[in-house]
Amino acid sequence: MEFIINKESLLEVLSKVEKLVKTKTSNPILQGFYLEVKSDKIIVIGSDLNTTIRYELPVLFEDESILINKEGKVVVPYQLYEIAKKVKTELSISLDDTQLVIKHGKKKKSEFKLSVFKAEEYPKLPRFDGIEPTLSIKGTEFNSFIKKTGYAASSSDARPVLQGICFEITEDKLRLVCTDSHRLGVIDVTESHKESRKIIIPAKSILESLKSFDLSEKVTVFCENDRMLILQNNNLTFYCRLLEGTYPDVSRLIPKEHLAEMKISRKEFLEGFEMINGLTNAADNETKGIVKLHVNGVATLSTYQAQTGSGKIEIDYESLEGEDNFDIAFNNNYMIDTLKAMESEYVSFKYQGSMRPFLLTPCDSSHEEIQLILPVRNK
Amino acid sequence: MEFIINKESLLEVLSKVEKLVKTKTSNPILQGFYLEVKSDKIIVIGSDLNTTIRYELPVLFEDESILINKEGKVVVPYQLYEIAKKVKTELSISLDDTQLVIKHGKKKKSEFKLSVFKAEEYPKLPRFDGIEPTLSIKGTEFNSFIKKTGYAASSSDARPVLQGICFEITEDKLRLVCTDSHRLGVIDVTESHKESRKIIIPAKSILESLKSFDLSEKVTVFCENDRMLILQNNNLTFYCRLLEGTYPDVSRLIPKEHLAEMKISRKEFLEGFEMINGLTNAADNETKGIVKLHVNGVATLSTYQAQTGSGKIEIDYESLEGEDNFDIAFNNNYMIDTLKAMESEYVSFKYQGSMRPFLLTPCDSSHEEIQLILPVRNK
Repeated sequence: MEFIINKESLLEVLSKVEKLVKTKTSNPILQGFYLEVKSDKIIVIGSDLNTTIRYELPVLFEDESILINKEGKVVVPYQLYEIAKKVKTELSISLDDTQLVIKHGKKKKSEFKLSVFKAEEYPKLPRFDGIEPTLSIKGTEFNSFIKKTGYAASSSDARPVLQGICFEITEDKLRLVCTDSHRLGVIDVTESHKESRKIIIPAKSILESLKSFDLSEKVTVFCENDRMLILQNNNLTFYCRLLEGTYPDVSRLIPKEHLAEMKISRKEFLEGFEMINGLTNAADNETKGIVKLHVNGVATLSTYQAQTGSGKIEIDYESLEGEDNFDIAFNNNYMIDTLKAMESEYVSFKYQGSMRPFLLTPCDSSHEEIQLILPVRNK
Repeated sequence: MEFIINKESLLEVLSKVEKLVKTKTSNPILQGFYLEVKSDKIIVIGSDLNTTIRYELPVLFEDESILINKEGKVVVPYQLYEIAKKVKTELSISLDDTQLVIKHGKKKKSEFKLSVFKAEEYPKLPRFDGIEPTLSIKGTEFNSFIKKTGYAASSSDARPVLQGICFEITEDKLRLVCTDSHRLGVIDVTESHKESRKIIIPAKSILESLKSFDLSEKVTVFCENDRMLILQNNNLTFYCRLLEGTYPDVSRLIPKEHLAEMKISRKEFLEGFEMINGLTNAADNETKGIVKLHVNGVATLSTYQAQTGSGKIEIDYESLEGEDNFDIAFNNNYMIDTLKAMESEYVSFKYQGSMRPFLLTPCDSSHEEIQLILPVRNK
């Protein structure tokens, strides 16, 4: 291996997988970058055991920022990334038996020798060339679907399946479901598929990895088996261990009817909950984090904390059908998360009783989306 | 109390003391802002018990962003700051018996009622109208002196006096000294004072509070007694409990002579230590964080970590007097802190033996500055 690369190109490659390499794992080889240099591309792989990202940078003939003299592959320590961040121009990198030699600069003659692992010792990635893709989605849509559901994933270890987003693929539909049992996000997309699958993707892994995706390109989903998901996105391949277990059936939770439907500006609604949030979270044991919504000609958010004080915000709604006089109480942080995850200008707030879950749906969306929050007892 | 104030002006006032209010203290009244509205000014006080800041915003006759209808004073909870951050335009604030009533907006009718403490219950601040100022310094210089010494303060509770910056005021000199016993920063300014004093200011308090200072205005120092320091800076007054104890005499630590003096670009020197820092800090027990400097025609920084690898950076020096062949090893993080705290384009590295402390001094400075670092055994 012997190549010259400018700082920006090296950082571009390494930054795609850097977060996975930085994660502490028990396997020392995973604390390094797998780096492979070919005449026409540079390949980097980073893994935290559960999630792996492989990124390929094509090297074009006319590209002057990279000059490849000799092919090769090796696993190099994280410090390569730290050095690349600090240097100013190009780096000359070569493999000298058991060390990666990095030279940099003219005046500041610097030379680093990093201990390496053999590339052959790096865990093998599953091959999927022969596998039919399960489905293919626009990058922007994939990103939006993951964000609109993944926010509702549980962060507790109590029920590991609830840390995931459930992808239900049937012949005529794709459904994404995510719940921590207090709130729920559901996306339904009508489209035809050749096979039916139900897989649970770790929400945290995919949410963090989305930053490395090129959202202007499509995302192709491969289910290699029941344990592994593979996503292909332009020059990036994402491998992820699926969560095992049975995802709860949420369909019976979603009410079909409602007593009232209020259309309201999502932005104004969100601003109201954010404005009152400092007060709802002021320490006051049982009512901590709880906000009340009273609708009667206007939507009124209120909170009362014995120690700190009270707050009341009135927001005009756009329209209301059904019962125009109701109260419901719920966790204000959940409401803020949900309204932030949604995108449409107006949302429908669907009420079906002060002790029954309420729904939020977008008033303008290209796909079916349901957001549900469980209320708390109104004290 | 009754006034109307726009969001920006209220935030300007509260943000000067917000950090102190947010600090958890056992005294509930200190978890609030002392707020006093007069016809010509708004006064706010925040305190974390050890440090107190009082800020006065003058209200000018022609100022349309503040309208004062009724004077008054009260202590209000932290949530006032959170509300002010979230609102968009002006707030109407009034005192209604035991509550501060905050109204905001036209369309979004919002109203907050915050529980208050009586202003009379807030701890009294010491008066210093009759006291002669001990000294007066330009804001920019004060800031620079504090930063060039305070970085070297100890963060350990083992010897509390080492958490402070020692101000030694004598008839003809001001000396600032700060050391954690591994490194040392000293500033000497020749000027005449009426009195002699030696006080120890908590470094963390003053470094954090400097952000609220107006550095274009001078800082006047009042020593009300041996327990309290008062700084006056434009509209802001800073009160701080002094550290008690005897500050170590550091003058005998500072060598008067040296075997070699190397003049080198501060920026290039710093970049070298930063570039090698990822490697020096790679876990490797005893040599962790240690960098070696070898000077022989050129300055060479190097590190060797058995697990990760080695690095070597050569930096041309500007000039060298004395012995041009020496080695010294020291903590790389200390070196980076020191070079960052310094300001001049070139620094002098003064070597006096591989097991003796070395000095860094600015090659261009309006005041005397000495930075000292203890070496470690060169393995």
